[in-house]
Amino acid sequence: MLKRFFSAADVPDVQLLIDKAISYKHSPFADNTLGKQKTIGLVFFNPSLRTRLSSQKAAQNLGMNVMLVNAGTESWKMEFEDGAIMNGTTVEHIKEGAAVLGEYCDIIAVRSFASLTDREQDYREEIILKTEQYSGRPLISLESATRHPLQSLADMMTIREIIKKANPRITLSWAPHPKALPQAVANSFLEWAQRYGAEITITHPPGYELSEEFTSGIRPEYNQQTAFENADIVYAKNWSSYENYGASLAHNENWIITKKKMDATNNASLLHCLPVRRNVEIADDALDNVNSRVIQQAGNRVWAAQAVIGDILTELGK
Amino acid sequence: MLKRFFSAADVPDVQLLIDKAISYKHSPFADNTLGKQKTIGLVFFNPSLRTRLSSQKAAQNLGMNVMLVNAGTESWKMEFEDGAIMNGTTVEHIKEGAAVLGEYCDIIAVRSFASLTDREQDYREEIILKTEQYSGRPLISLESATRHPLQSLADMMTIREIIKKANPRITLSWAPHPKALPQAVANSFLEWAQRYGAEITITHPPGYELSEEFTSGIRPEYNQQTAFENADIVYAKNWSSYENYGASLAHNENWIITKKKMDATNNASLLHCLPVRRNVEIADDALDNVNSRVIQQAGNRVWAAQAVIGDILTELGK
Amino acid sequence: MLKRFFSAADVPDVQLLIDKAISYKHSPFADNTLGKQKTIGLVFFNPSLRTRLSSQKAAQNLGMNVMLVNAGTESWKMEFEDGAIMNGTTVEHIKEGAAVLGEYCDIIAVRSFASLTDREQDYREEIILKTEQYSGRPLISLESATRHPLQSLADMMTIREIIKKANPRITLSWAPHPKALPQAVANSFLEWAQRYGAEITITHPPGYELSEEFTSGIRPEYNQQTAFENADIVYAKNWSSYENYGASLAHNENWIITKKKMDATNNASLLHCLPVRRNVEIADDALDNVNSRVIQQAGNRVWAAQAVIGDILTELGK
Repeated sequence: MLKRFFSAADVPDVQLLIDKAISYKHSPFADNTLGKQKTIGLVFFNPSLRTRLSSQKAAQNLGMNVMLVNAGTESWKMEFEDGAIMNGTTVEHIKEGAAVLGEYCDIIAVRSFASLTDREQDYREEIILKTEQYSGRPLISLESATRHPLQSLADMMTIREIIKKANPRITLSWAPHPKALPQAVANSFLEWAQRYGAEITITHPPGYELSEEFTSGIRPEYNQQTAFENADIVYAKNWSSYENYGASLAHNENWIITKKKMDATNNASLLHCLPVRRNVEIADDALDNVNSRVIQQAGNRVWAAQAVIGDILTELGK
Repeated sequence: MLKRFFSAADVPDVQLLIDKAISYKHSPFADNTLGKQKTIGLVFFNPSLRTRLSSQKAAQNLGMNVMLVNAGTESWKMEFEDGAIMNGTTVEHIKEGAAVLGEYCDIIAVRSFASLTDREQDYREEIILKTEQYSGRPLISLESATRHPLQSLADMMTIREIIKKANPRITLSWAPHPKALPQAVANSFLEWAQRYGAEITITHPPGYELSEEFTSGIRPEYNQQTAFENADIVYAKNWSSYENYGASLAHNENWIITKKKMDATNNASLLHCLPVRRNVEIADDALDNVNSRVIQQAGNRVWAAQAVIGDILTELGK
Repeated sequence: MLKRFFSAADVPDVQLLIDKAISYKHSPFADNTLGKQKTIGLVFFNPSLRTRLSSQKAAQNLGMNVMLVNAGTESWKMEFEDGAIMNGTTVEHIKEGAAVLGEYCDIIAVRSFASLTDREQDYREEIILKTEQYSGRPLISLESATRHPLQSLADMMTIREIIKKANPRITLSWAPHPKALPQAVANSFLEWAQRYGAEITITHPPGYELSEEFTSGIRPEYNQQTAFENADIVYAKNWSSYENYGASLAHNENWIITKKKMDATNNASLLHCLPVRRNVEIADDALDNVNSRVIQQAGNRVWAAQAVIGDILTELGK
């Protein structure tokens, strides 16, 4: 059973958790009293659409009460530094902020993006881990600086639905984007795909190598065309540089994923976590193609969240 | 039964729908399990108070889960143009945005105001109709560029409560306002009042003629005093020019509705959709008068919404 | 029974209300159908975290539906002046705004902070009292310009949990803060502590005397050290000047509450309503000490709110 959900390392058996998610997809209300009289707090230090709605729906399917906190806009600005003299703009220390949330909620789910300015700080994951520590409640990550595990679980579930074989060949492809984005989705996808048992190829322009913590030494294939050959799944995602932390390197527009490129795969399905910049990351002809499974993948976010919350509730009820 | 609720044309029998709304007013919880385990998404591209609260309450009375999306502020900026190269400020295309909402919700309710800058675009109703198209779910309009049908249904219900006779004489009167407003409420009111069977008079200063699509050739009476004579109902509302699209024409302050003007009617009741600018649109002495029924009218928003949602749920359950 | 909850004067028996709060703390779901099919509107003219979450949770524990209105940001700007000609920035008069809320909600809870610019206006409490008047529903204050009664009830409940004796010695101590704050929490605390039967000492720098309406002639002790001697409870709070209305007077940084100062008390517990500026109002060594009960106090906000809402629901059900 899950005690927290921050990374793939918290999951005893990835395939069992996918089983549970698929089971909820077929019977959404099978456990509709499991969360009765329990409250989940969804805390957003950064904005969210899919994650908020899918988590809210998952919790409601389990009979829970949901409390939303838009910590970035609606409430006070939080202080995370120990010993800070708070005579500036931060209004509440995470020590109190999280402890109070812990008083009101049985489970705390938190979103906090990477700053992309301070790599060591981002990869220490202070915001989400201090929120966990001071709340004293089981934590669910709604995307942290370095990982997006609910997305990854939905990704693996979708891959299982698409491909029956045990070791699908998956290509994670960098795609262009007008704005520098965190590495969280890509990192997390790799972490989970390895646990899933996939044969993984990573392709991106030079300079976009991800942290070795997540690639486990998988060597990037710098030729996108080569990387697409024989792929069963193409997972498209932009991320900014890890080495030159947070930077977007110029002149990689030709990395856009098109139907023509997809046609050179093993009839691969196309995944993307959304939101997607049409005709920048992926061309219309690939996104509107039958092999695009991005909506199914987004729909699966509900069942992934429900499996995780359900598992934690079961653990809490012991 | 309703399959969608965008305009009066979607309603097979206006009087039956009013019956249903009045019935819910007397027995709010008569169908409190009809929406069990169903979710309605309330999507606001523009802000809302009455509409959000009344729709939320109506859905809860039917046992539904409610998910709010403040699409203007809380989430990503949406792209509506086909083929757009999304390297600018829009973050998600309505194709994905609406399809994902469709994954999470059984009914999608949307508010999207007129821009008042591009008449053809506004009257094409792209935003709300594309949201309907790509979500694949029954649509409820929470006010679109050209219509506000939940308001109009509440208006007709209130008229029925006030006046028993089948063909009440209704005067729709333009009223001054410091800001240019859409034509949606006035358009929609006319569409519904004609279906209701009312004898309609429209009065406004020259230049404020509404689209013939909604007036069906009813000639405006430019003399407000004449238009008020014999009225059973005065419906006050500001709108900007359709001809000189979105413009506010100067020097019409004397169109304010006062008790003295109301006294020249057939003891008419005064309606307004709210919010109302006191002493600009309507004088205190008319609003605070017993013949003002604006609060009753706003209260009826709940029952109008409940009738519509209830009808769509019944259709979904078939 | 409570008919409204604006000040301590609305409470027939403070100790009985504390009993009820403590009883809910032990049995949160004892009355979980009391609020069935009833709706509470939580209206925030100013932002909130603890108050919103604790009120929402309390209402849900009683089976109520909750409707949130962020009146400062999400909806229209309200007009409060009678006879106003609304051709400016206010979009809706409180006469309509509150009346419509009254149509949708069975209980109206409102937060509206002091302006700190116009003392007479703030202490007239126009915003909250007009909202009550025009809504026609039982009012619960979620903090008004001059009082914060849900906080005070949680404070008294916490004091009862900590100290068994009937007349605890409580010192209300001013503490430094980088921003001018309202007097509401301090005023309200004094009002309730007197009803509770406490022996009260107030300590602050000269110039921070509170309104006599709340101090009832208790003379301030300007020497903080003297005020802490023999205290069973130290209640720390910043407030701005009442005399020089809304001002923060300079050079009082040494009023910070430290462990050393706490050590000179009768082993006193430390309370604060939160959010607290660490190392400005209270030093880390006092806040992280076992005698700090601020988290317990914040947790009690739920049970205080539940006692108040529960009592009003019982009254409504008669």
